[in-house]
Amino acid sequence: MEKEIIEKINSRTKPLGSLGRLEEIAFKIGMIQGRVNPELKNPVILVFAADHGISEEGVSPFPKEITHQMVMNFTRGGAGINVFTKQHGIGLKVIDSGVDYDFPEGAGIIDAKLARGTNNMLKEPAMSVELCREAIKRGREFTRSEFENGCNVIGFGEMGIGNTSSASLLLHKLGGYPLEQCVGRGAGHDEEGVKKKLETLSKVSKKYNPPGVEEILSTFGGLEIAMMCGAILEAKRLNMLILADGFIATSAFLTAIKMDPGVYENTIFCHSSGEKGHALMLQHLKAEPLLNLGLRLGEGTGAAIAYPLIKSALHFLNEMAGFDEL
Amino acid sequence: MEKEIIEKINSRTKPLGSLGRLEEIAFKIGMIQGRVNPELKNPVILVFAADHGISEEGVSPFPKEITHQMVMNFTRGGAGINVFTKQHGIGLKVIDSGVDYDFPEGAGIIDAKLARGTNNMLKEPAMSVELCREAIKRGREFTRSEFENGCNVIGFGEMGIGNTSSASLLLHKLGGYPLEQCVGRGAGHDEEGVKKKLETLSKVSKKYNPPGVEEILSTFGGLEIAMMCGAILEAKRLNMLILADGFIATSAFLTAIKMDPGVYENTIFCHSSGEKGHALMLQHLKAEPLLNLGLRLGEGTGAAIAYPLIKSALHFLNEMAGFDEL
Repeated sequence: MEKEIIEKINSRTKPLGSLGRLEEIAFKIGMIQGRVNPELKNPVILVFAADHGISEEGVSPFPKEITHQMVMNFTRGGAGINVFTKQHGIGLKVIDSGVDYDFPEGAGIIDAKLARGTNNMLKEPAMSVELCREAIKRGREFTRSEFENGCNVIGFGEMGIGNTSSASLLLHKLGGYPLEQCVGRGAGHDEEGVKKKLETLSKVSKKYNPPGVEEILSTFGGLEIAMMCGAILEAKRLNMLILADGFIATSAFLTAIKMDPGVYENTIFCHSSGEKGHALMLQHLKAEPLLNLGLRLGEGTGAAIAYPLIKSALHFLNEMAGFDEL
Repeated sequence: MEKEIIEKINSRTKPLGSLGRLEEIAFKIGMIQGRVNPELKNPVILVFAADHGISEEGVSPFPKEITHQMVMNFTRGGAGINVFTKQHGIGLKVIDSGVDYDFPEGAGIIDAKLARGTNNMLKEPAMSVELCREAIKRGREFTRSEFENGCNVIGFGEMGIGNTSSASLLLHKLGGYPLEQCVGRGAGHDEEGVKKKLETLSKVSKKYNPPGVEEILSTFGGLEIAMMCGAILEAKRLNMLILADGFIATSAFLTAIKMDPGVYENTIFCHSSGEKGHALMLQHLKAEPLLNLGLRLGEGTGAAIAYPLIKSALHFLNEMAGFDEL
């Protein structure tokens, strides 16, 4: 199949290689689907939301309440991810993985609340290994459900005040980089705020030495990150195309790839965010992001705005004439 | 208006500045239109095609006939630009600015043939100043016609075997860079081919010393580049949003900006191409391109695939909720 796809790409009416990264993407999706005319069907972005015990240490400039307020904003169509998924006809599901708030019934939020947020990891591990496993399992179920509805391309977003702290610690522990290279401004800290955040996370880091990937995820992760990790693993198992978003979402990919390296070949890394640590994380994964626009909003927004480029890759492969038709 | 647009951007439900370059674009378009809720209407890409006398010196690895074959491909919907404009609902017009071929009537090609290609600039200037002025004038008319049809965002593409030679010489003469920094692989030269191209263009460069921008464009340009230059100048005069594509299209912007520096503030530089010289040209213009995907196809394809990102910028500005609605 490899040879056929390359031949098809090279015989379109354009100078050899002149569609650059779009050619790589077309090749990648062709190889995943084993077809010279791959298709993307029923695209969806799942947004996982959860609270973080560590937020009570002031690691974010925003109070915890923003998590549930933004989740409600998602249900009313007012957030960035609503606007961009609507623009591109991408389905959007909002999943409460562990928000410390009782959402009104009928608001359209999928209830997978496994706890009212994680523990404060300055005091105890964010999750037990059992809870983390349950989150992974639930994440797998959400992907499977989309797959059964005919979806073959899935992206993931997140909302959770305090979750850049988890992502930074996952990069630090799983990637082996000094913590100060992994900690950034998050939702908008000034220099002083970043310093305080780094001091807090440094204490957290020193407190634990978990032996494996699952324990690292349990100790430092979040319920939304663990659920996303499961959702990613299942998407690979089902051979779907998987879209990676920003810093926090990529930390779930980093974790998933440590559990199943095959995830990598099904993933498109959609953008490099403005959050410090993301470029390093992508470099660690040998991932070349499609976009570099300084986005640092999360929610899956980078994956959503990159989607039309991915579709462009398939449009050229499937719709351009060949030289034999000139 | 500046203050109102910034306030609106900053009060959307997202961390301050977290939509990065999309915020810059939203601001730019808001300022052009003088509105906090700008709109893009009837987007169109005009593709100008022409032949180049210099092509008989082997500056391109492709024969001149490819120009008219690709123009015919445009009319049948088989080229890259067809596929991407269709994907994004962008209008496409194909203009024969000076192709050395008699196109069949009814093929849908707009006839603005001012000559059957330029002169071989190794022997004489590519165009007379009069012919160049006529091309600029005709280019202006094409933009005006789109504007009168309600279009307020316009992009430009080109097709013309040999036209990276013109673009390289324009960068060399208008930007003042050594020729070897301006000459690249074009449609796909190997190292030997680039060397020969550079030798030829070096002779061309030494032969003339035109005094002003218009004379430089006449001596080294192409009919499609001159027409595009006029189309750009008119788009600025009509205060439209203008989309710059790759190396050759940007050489028309470089020329137009030397004639009217105000063009710059209406232009979005859509991508940095894989053609050597384009990054330098963008740097000279202090332009930060939106995409960097190694495209080097021309035809306006970079402008077309970047278009949904530009729309995303307006969608967030116009559709996201404000913090007061949380």
